[in-house]
Amino acid sequence: MQPTQRRLANAIRALSMDAVEAANSGHPGMPMGMADAATALFGRYLKFDPADPNWPDRDRFVLSAGHGSMLIYSLLYLTGYAHPTIDDLKNFRQLGSPCAGHPENFELPGVEVTTGPLGQGLAMAVGMAIAERHLNAIYGDSLVDHRTYVIAGDGCLMEGVNHEAVGLAGNLGLGRLIVLWDDNKITIDGSTDLSRNEDVMARFAASAWHTVECDGLDATSVSRALDEAIANQRPSLIRCKTIIGYGAPTKQGTAGTHGAPLGAEEIAAARKELGWDSAPFEIPDDILGAWRDFGKRGQAKHKDWTDRLEASGKRDEFFARMAGKVDDSWLQPHLDSLIANPPKVATRKASEMALEAINPVVTATIGGSADLTGSNNTKTKALQPLTAENYGGRYVYYGIREFGMAAAMNGMALHGGVIPYGGTFLVFTDYARPAIRLSALQKARVIYVMTHDSIGLGEDGPTHQPIEHLQSLRAMPGLEVYRPADAVETAECWALALASEQPGVLALTRQNVPAIRTEAAGENLCARGAYRIKPAEADRKVIFLATGSEVEIALGAAQKLEAEGIGADVVSVPCTERFDAQPDSYREDILPDVSNRDILRVSVEAGTTFGWERYTGLHGLKIGIDRFGVSSPAPDAYEFFGLTPDAIAARVLDHLQKRDMR
Amino acid sequence: MQPTQRRLANAIRALSMDAVEAANSGHPGMPMGMADAATALFGRYLKFDPADPNWPDRDRFVLSAGHGSMLIYSLLYLTGYAHPTIDDLKNFRQLGSPCAGHPENFELPGVEVTTGPLGQGLAMAVGMAIAERHLNAIYGDSLVDHRTYVIAGDGCLMEGVNHEAVGLAGNLGLGRLIVLWDDNKITIDGSTDLSRNEDVMARFAASAWHTVECDGLDATSVSRALDEAIANQRPSLIRCKTIIGYGAPTKQGTAGTHGAPLGAEEIAAARKELGWDSAPFEIPDDILGAWRDFGKRGQAKHKDWTDRLEASGKRDEFFARMAGKVDDSWLQPHLDSLIANPPKVATRKASEMALEAINPVVTATIGGSADLTGSNNTKTKALQPLTAENYGGRYVYYGIREFGMAAAMNGMALHGGVIPYGGTFLVFTDYARPAIRLSALQKARVIYVMTHDSIGLGEDGPTHQPIEHLQSLRAMPGLEVYRPADAVETAECWALALASEQPGVLALTRQNVPAIRTEAAGENLCARGAYRIKPAEADRKVIFLATGSEVEIALGAAQKLEAEGIGADVVSVPCTERFDAQPDSYREDILPDVSNRDILRVSVEAGTTFGWERYTGLHGLKIGIDRFGVSSPAPDAYEFFGLTPDAIAARVLDHLQKRDMR
Repeated sequence: MQPTQRRLANAIRALSMDAVEAANSGHPGMPMGMADAATALFGRYLKFDPADPNWPDRDRFVLSAGHGSMLIYSLLYLTGYAHPTIDDLKNFRQLGSPCAGHPENFELPGVEVTTGPLGQGLAMAVGMAIAERHLNAIYGDSLVDHRTYVIAGDGCLMEGVNHEAVGLAGNLGLGRLIVLWDDNKITIDGSTDLSRNEDVMARFAASAWHTVECDGLDATSVSRALDEAIANQRPSLIRCKTIIGYGAPTKQGTAGTHGAPLGAEEIAAARKELGWDSAPFEIPDDILGAWRDFGKRGQAKHKDWTDRLEASGKRDEFFARMAGKVDDSWLQPHLDSLIANPPKVATRKASEMALEAINPVVTATIGGSADLTGSNNTKTKALQPLTAENYGGRYVYYGIREFGMAAAMNGMALHGGVIPYGGTFLVFTDYARPAIRLSALQKARVIYVMTHDSIGLGEDGPTHQPIEHLQSLRAMPGLEVYRPADAVETAECWALALASEQPGVLALTRQNVPAIRTEAAGENLCARGAYRIKPAEADRKVIFLATGSEVEIALGAAQKLEAEGIGADVVSVPCTERFDAQPDSYREDILPDVSNRDILRVSVEAGTTFGWERYTGLHGLKIGIDRFGVSSPAPDAYEFFGLTPDAIAARVLDHLQKRDMR
Repeated sequence: MQPTQRRLANAIRALSMDAVEAANSGHPGMPMGMADAATALFGRYLKFDPADPNWPDRDRFVLSAGHGSMLIYSLLYLTGYAHPTIDDLKNFRQLGSPCAGHPENFELPGVEVTTGPLGQGLAMAVGMAIAERHLNAIYGDSLVDHRTYVIAGDGCLMEGVNHEAVGLAGNLGLGRLIVLWDDNKITIDGSTDLSRNEDVMARFAASAWHTVECDGLDATSVSRALDEAIANQRPSLIRCKTIIGYGAPTKQGTAGTHGAPLGAEEIAAARKELGWDSAPFEIPDDILGAWRDFGKRGQAKHKDWTDRLEASGKRDEFFARMAGKVDDSWLQPHLDSLIANPPKVATRKASEMALEAINPVVTATIGGSADLTGSNNTKTKALQPLTAENYGGRYVYYGIREFGMAAAMNGMALHGGVIPYGGTFLVFTDYARPAIRLSALQKARVIYVMTHDSIGLGEDGPTHQPIEHLQSLRAMPGLEVYRPADAVETAECWALALASEQPGVLALTRQNVPAIRTEAAGENLCARGAYRIKPAEADRKVIFLATGSEVEIALGAAQKLEAEGIGADVVSVPCTERFDAQPDSYREDILPDVSNRDILRVSVEAGTTFGWERYTGLHGLKIGIDRFGVSSPAPDAYEFFGLTPDAIAARVLDHLQKRDMR
């Protein structure tokens, strides 16, 4: 006899409370409350094959309420994924266990995205649903035809990013996105009434979503709601009325079950309440068997899909695309044309020129902007908008939703088959920063096109002028920050970002910059992260390290010093992360021993000097801006902050004079 | 004869298009579209007195759509504020003009908040409305009885932070908050249809707001809507149907008027269309006269208010409170008790202990948390919740809305009369970062209580473990970042943050730390930013610089080195910004000349080492974490990353040995 749905769900409850207890840390409340709904979803609806977690046409499941990680770990174990094993579950939250505190896509196949920072799972799911529809438009129903399911809690639905994600999904009519809301009326601080009186269903409906409610503790009721959601053409919100920590007799329904072990006594009582008499981490055979059968539901569909793929003749192309291979044949002809006719353009324009070369060749790109298309230069001529009427388009109008855009791009990248890039102003990386961090943590190849990268944006003033942004992005692990100096460097940086397995930020100017790379190099010089663009002519006394628009200025300052008989190298530093990864010999060639006080190192960047001691040493000179900016035309701002060849040469001369007088 | 409302509004239109034209930069579309609505608001409703822009009981006006800065500049000029003058307007967006590209509260009295980063004006207005109701609860209708008006555009209403702000305002029933939505159906990229199909009115209604619509180009229609909004007890959204760039005959209604000068030809045509024949920057006498009369409307109310204040006997107390004076009499007794009984507690707990001493004395504080009250330890026992039923409460349950909380706190601080502090996990400063930047830019005294400040939070893992956060916050201008090492330092840092004119971030541990300050100091040692907590005993070869929970570890490492005959100072660095501001003599005493290679500087912080070269120099040793964290119990994580006395002492010994072998 098939075990009841409730008993199947109780397996999740037992594993969750036992693993949290063993770890003496974690969140049992959410998995226990949503166990029945998850049983309905995984038991009857979700298309997946534990034997091949990366099957491209699987449904995507996103646990946006990532603190409830034992829900997904339980499900992966029960349905028969290779990992987690039961020992992995016993080591929940211990060093080295793939069962981390929050689900991490890089630890466990079957965990599609890394969640925990609230709201972002839902927002990434929107990106996954976009990628699915886009690939469907290209490959058709026979090869790409899957859904994206989300479990979200009240935290996810309070975070601002959910508003952006919900708006984006509504406008794009992403009918294959289904969100199950764990409506348990509890947050960490207590009743949701403490902080919210919103009619959540009405809000989603206002954003063109379909809404339906169900008893989240009754798998049959959940199934009815899922049937309705699947039948509806709009994105769906399913309100699952649940009780947090369901099954723990004295604690259920309280914040006490949210983020702490239940304790031995309460667990014993819960076992009695649930009629669950197995020992911790033991699942009765009939129940495990039924779950494993759920795990086999997808095998036939998987096989049919494989047959269709083989028959389509698109096998190799499809897998290459899903693997994210990038054709870089666009680069050399593009560089040749730039060398032939060196343009004086803003690097944001140079980025557009690069994209005009990239997009026809790298057809997996999907561009976009958070409502700054004409400023970010992200839309190349041939790109059509990706809309509810044309999912085959390759340009997303994200609206004024920087965070939502970044999170959606994470979802697109992790879905696979597309390479998202999107733009806003560099200062607004702050708005998107939580998602940029998840790009880095998840190793999602997302390319951030961040223009207006300094006081050089001019009149918009301090609110729009990045100061600390370059350095604070460089401080983030796993992120490559590029600041190219001209059109050639911009193209080289684009090539690096596209070829990388990490996310990249391109920081680009609003203002024009001259071509500084006017001769063919024979290699991608930016790949080194920093390179000597002008060697000292006179006896070398100074090494300038400059980035982006300040390379031109450093070259001007060096010229003035040379005229005084002071030799000065100029080093362009398009990517500090890459320079740091070079062999010692290369780094020492560029920056000879700092103890040689005869050579003054001078950094020049129109942003905070914080952290530039890394290259200048404590006896170097750091030229930058250690306060907020000013509203004025760009040349006046550069003048005001002493970022001109004259002012810099004067400062260096003064510094050398004082040093030599000591 | 009184000029028509339309002609009064046209004064705004003319000044806006002319100033943008003169600057050859700026945003004429929004001021031209909302000129009639602004005329209704300033002409009939707004309570203000240009002769005293800081009159505490004035209504607050927030231009959330800050790019339309010429709207507020025009209004301030027309109604007779001392600034901007007509010459200031002519210098719009030029270096040194108070009329910056976006409105800045520190440039012009009458500009309540700095706006431009979209959505945040509205969110700050929520904080202002909270502060108003709170002070009303204390001082009554006779002294505090004003409204907060906002003009917001589509950008503001797409940004996620607006969802958080709207939810907060709805839940707190802030009926004195009235938002005028400039519904012009245009964003930078074109029609709002490109990115949004939301029913905005229904969304606000779902969050318990009152909504009403009007013809935004008809001041009478706007007035009717304002009357209805004022009569309603809920916060109100007024949908003002407008045309962007209204009056510019060929460009109005298009994105072309949003962010660029109209051009001489179009301006000439607009003058004809509007029947405006004055020269640029000239306002006909009857029109200027009528506007100046609007500016005098508030005088009588202001005088009545002053009389009531005098009669109340609360004059001095009220002004002292509005001036933000802080009584620090709590500090010494609190320090005495800590010295008498040195506690081994987490610094988050030490923060709660400090707050138990602070809150009864500094009664202007309003605490809160983004749904982590029990984790952030922000609620002291006597604090009652601030709710729609009890605005006199001093604790806000912000919900899972870090960004909305931070922005609201900015508004509260800028309103005056209250000192907001609020908590979340340090890693989630990323969510709040755009508002933290505005705290710094605006010099808003907001205190961020950021707990769980390192891998020491343990099992929650990489998504929750800050790595780059301390350094990326230190890179931000105008922000003081405190990382105290024990309960005494925590109290000292609280005192500094409360006394500061800048915002402060307190980074606090989840895990217990021992008392390291066990003797009375006679001064606030943290005020120096860094100080020697243990001098070398043997011949000094090493200086440790450590922060927060790593001070204990550095002390342990130093002890091991001393046992080997290697003298080691330990310097606690609770605030690098303050240390950098010390006189040379002090800094050189703590960190003797770096060229003295006999003394090795070693930084120890459980976060990125990026930027620590500032203190260690290039030949020092930086001990930290330059990757994402791990999910494990905290001691295992510290062990894993080599952040133990043994591991650190071994690394230092190894380093010294290699150095001496060279």
